[in-house]
Amino acid sequence: MAHPSLPDDLAIHGDGGGTIIMLVMDGLGGLPHPDTHRTELESASTPHLDALAARSSLGMLAPVGHGITPGSGPGHLALFGYDPVESMIGRGVLSALGVGFDLQPGDVAARLNMATVDDDGVVTDRRAGRPSDEDGRRVIEAVRDNLDTPEGVALTLIHEKEHRAVLVLRGEGLGARISDTDPQRTNSRPVPATAIEADPASERTAGIVQGILDQVQDILADEPKANSFLARGFAEFTPYPSFEARFGLRAVAVAKYPMYRGVATLAGMTVDGVPDSNEGSVEMLERHFGAYDFYFIHFKDTDSRAHDGDFQGKVEAIEEVDALLPRITALGPDVLIVTGDHSTPALLGEHSWHHVPTLLASQWARPSAAEFGEACCRGGDLGVLPGKDLMSLALAHAGRLDKYGA
Amino acid sequence: MAHPSLPDDLAIHGDGGGTIIMLVMDGLGGLPHPDTHRTELESASTPHLDALAARSSLGMLAPVGHGITPGSGPGHLALFGYDPVESMIGRGVLSALGVGFDLQPGDVAARLNMATVDDDGVVTDRRAGRPSDEDGRRVIEAVRDNLDTPEGVALTLIHEKEHRAVLVLRGEGLGARISDTDPQRTNSRPVPATAIEADPASERTAGIVQGILDQVQDILADEPKANSFLARGFAEFTPYPSFEARFGLRAVAVAKYPMYRGVATLAGMTVDGVPDSNEGSVEMLERHFGAYDFYFIHFKDTDSRAHDGDFQGKVEAIEEVDALLPRITALGPDVLIVTGDHSTPALLGEHSWHHVPTLLASQWARPSAAEFGEACCRGGDLGVLPGKDLMSLALAHAGRLDKYGA
Repeated sequence: MAHPSLPDDLAIHGDGGGTIIMLVMDGLGGLPHPDTHRTELESASTPHLDALAARSSLGMLAPVGHGITPGSGPGHLALFGYDPVESMIGRGVLSALGVGFDLQPGDVAARLNMATVDDDGVVTDRRAGRPSDEDGRRVIEAVRDNLDTPEGVALTLIHEKEHRAVLVLRGEGLGARISDTDPQRTNSRPVPATAIEADPASERTAGIVQGILDQVQDILADEPKANSFLARGFAEFTPYPSFEARFGLRAVAVAKYPMYRGVATLAGMTVDGVPDSNEGSVEMLERHFGAYDFYFIHFKDTDSRAHDGDFQGKVEAIEEVDALLPRITALGPDVLIVTGDHSTPALLGEHSWHHVPTLLASQWARPSAAEFGEACCRGGDLGVLPGKDLMSLALAHAGRLDKYGA
Repeated sequence: MAHPSLPDDLAIHGDGGGTIIMLVMDGLGGLPHPDTHRTELESASTPHLDALAARSSLGMLAPVGHGITPGSGPGHLALFGYDPVESMIGRGVLSALGVGFDLQPGDVAARLNMATVDDDGVVTDRRAGRPSDEDGRRVIEAVRDNLDTPEGVALTLIHEKEHRAVLVLRGEGLGARISDTDPQRTNSRPVPATAIEADPASERTAGIVQGILDQVQDILADEPKANSFLARGFAEFTPYPSFEARFGLRAVAVAKYPMYRGVATLAGMTVDGVPDSNEGSVEMLERHFGAYDFYFIHFKDTDSRAHDGDFQGKVEAIEEVDALLPRITALGPDVLIVTGDHSTPALLGEHSWHHVPTLLASQWARPSAAEFGEACCRGGDLGVLPGKDLMSLALAHAGRLDKYGA
C-alpha cells in the first residue's frame, strides 16, 4: 500500500526533515448552536489556538468523503495517510491492538460487550449496566477460568474497559467474515454468529464463536447483570506497511484510550506508556519529544461530551486542550497540526459527516485568520482537504518531500 | 455500478430516513455582468432563496470536472449520484426515454433533427425553420407511412417537439458506434452514417441508418423546409441500476421537458405526468409529496434564456422560481437542495464548465451566508463539490447513511 496521495516515484527524505506533531481532538467539528450560531469550537475561548491559527494554513478536512460519517478507525487511518476505504479494518483488530495484544497475521479478533439477557434470551441491556472496570475484569476472569477452549484454536480473552473486552482466536484456517451477534438494540435476541460469505474458514470460525458464546452464557448464568457476551467487529489481522516504511518517520503515539493506541500501532507507531489524564498526555509528549520524528497526541473528551449532547461540555473540553497548548508549542515542532478524526456535533450527539476544522502551523504556512473555527477554516488556504492528504502536507511542510519531476 | 462516492460496504437505510427534494434550475451558474460585476443569480431578487441559504450549507458544484462543460445528460447523471463519465449515455437513449418509449436492452436510439437541404444536398437550415409541434408531427407521420422498414429490424419513429424526433431500432446484432450525420453547421453536406469502430454490428447498423435517411429524403422531397433528417447521439440502451436499488429511495421526477424525464427514467425514477408550466410543476410536486422519498423537480427557463444570451431574461427566470419556492419549502422536506446541472452564462450563450452555486437546506446544515449566489457559495461549508458527491451528502443529511467503520 503506497501512500494514496503521493506518486510512487516521489522521494521522501528519511533524514534531516523537520518534526511533526499531530494533535487530534476527537470529534472536533461541530454544528452551530441555535441561539448563538456559533459551533462548539467557535464558542470556546481559545486564545492559544487562535494565536496558532494566525501562523497556520487553515482548511476543512473531509476525513473519508462527502456525506460519509467515519468511525474512529477510518477517521484516524485517513489522518495517518492511509486510504480509509481501502485500509478499512474491523473494530476487533483495533481493540486487540489497543489493549497491547501482539496480533499475528491470520489472527481473528472481535470486540465483546458484556450484556444482560433475560430468561427468554432477550437482550435487556447491551452494556450490562456499565460495570466498573474492576467488576468487568472479574467477569472476564471468571469466563477465562471456566471456558473449554475449542480444539485447534488458541483463545485469548482480554478485558478492555468497563463492559468491553476483546476476543482473539489464533489457529489454522480461521476466517473473519462473520456477522455481529450484537443486535444493536434491546428487546431483541442476539444474532447467532454466522458466516456472511460462503467461505469455509469463516463458517468454521462462526461455529467456534457461537460455541464460546453459548459456554459464556452457562458460565455467567448466576451473574445479575453481565450474564452474556455480544460480539462485533470480527476482523482478521493483516499488518499494514508501517509509518516508518512509508514515510521514513519514527512515530510515537500518546493516547489515553486503547482504541487510538490500537490504530496507531496498526500504523506502526510506537506506544510507550499510557497517560492517565490530558495533562499526563502532554507530559508524556514532553518526555518523548526529541526521540522521534512524528508525534500523535490524542484527546478524547471533545468527542465524549458531544456524544452526551453536552454542547457546553464540549466547549470546555476544547478550552482544556487550549490551556495545554503552550506546553506543546514550546517544544518547537517544525509542523504542528491540530485537527479531528471526524465531527461530533453536540446537537447531533453522534459522529457526523461534516468537515473538520484543521490548522497546520509551520514556517511555510499561508495564514488567513487569527482564529480557529469552522468559519475561518472554510475560508482557509487548504480548502476542503481529503483526510488522507493531510500527511503529504505535513511531510511537505517538514521539508521531507522531494520535488516531483524535473 | 455502485455509488461512485460511497464505500461498497457502507449501509444505506431504506426506511425511516428523511425526504429529499432536489430542485434543479438548468444552467444555473453564470458569469458576472460587465457593468454590475454580478452574475445572473446575484443580480436576481431572490428573497426566498436567500432565506433558505441562511439555513443551508453552501458550496460550488463541479458537475463533471475542472474545465469540463457537461451536456444535460452527464450533468443530471452526476446530480443523481452516477459517475458522469463512467455512466455516459448517448443523447438518443435519453431522448427515447424522454418521450416515454419503453426501451429494451440492445435497442439503438438516435436523436433526429429535421433539416433543410438545397438541391446540391447542402444543409441550409439545421432546424428546418423550426416547425411548429403540429407541423413537425405531420412530417414524422408522412415518413412513418411511407418508409420501407429494413429487414430484420423493428423501427420506431417518434416526434418529440418542433423539429426534433427520435429513432429507435430493435433487432439482433445492432451496434451504436456510429458517427453523427449532423455536420453541426450549415453550408455543409450531412456526414454519411459510418461505423466509428471496426465493429460488424455498428457497420451493419450504419448501413441501415443511411438507407433510412436516403429514403427520408425521397419521401420528403416536396417539403419546402423539412426535407431531410440529421441523426446524432447514437446509443445502445443498457439499463442502469435504479435509484431505489442503489439508494433505497422511491423517487419521482417532475420535468416539463422530455430530455429530463428521460434521464430521470434512466435513473429509475417514476415519471407520473407532464407539467405544462413552472407553476404546474410545483402543483405536481405538491400532489406527489408524501408518496415518495426523493423528488426531482426541474426548471428549464434559466438555461433557455441564457442560451439566447438574454442576461435579464435569465435573471427573471430565476426570480420566477424564487417566487414559487415558498410552496416547496412549505412541504417541509428534511433536505432541500437547490442547484443546477451545469452553468450556462448568458454572456457565453451556451453551457460552460464553471462551478454551479448549490445550497443544501437541512436541520444539520452549517450556514455561512444569508444569500444565494456564486460569491457566497464559493465561501460555503461544502467547498468545491464533485457533482456525483451531492447525493451522498443528501443521504447523510436525510439520516440515511450508516456510520462507516468502527
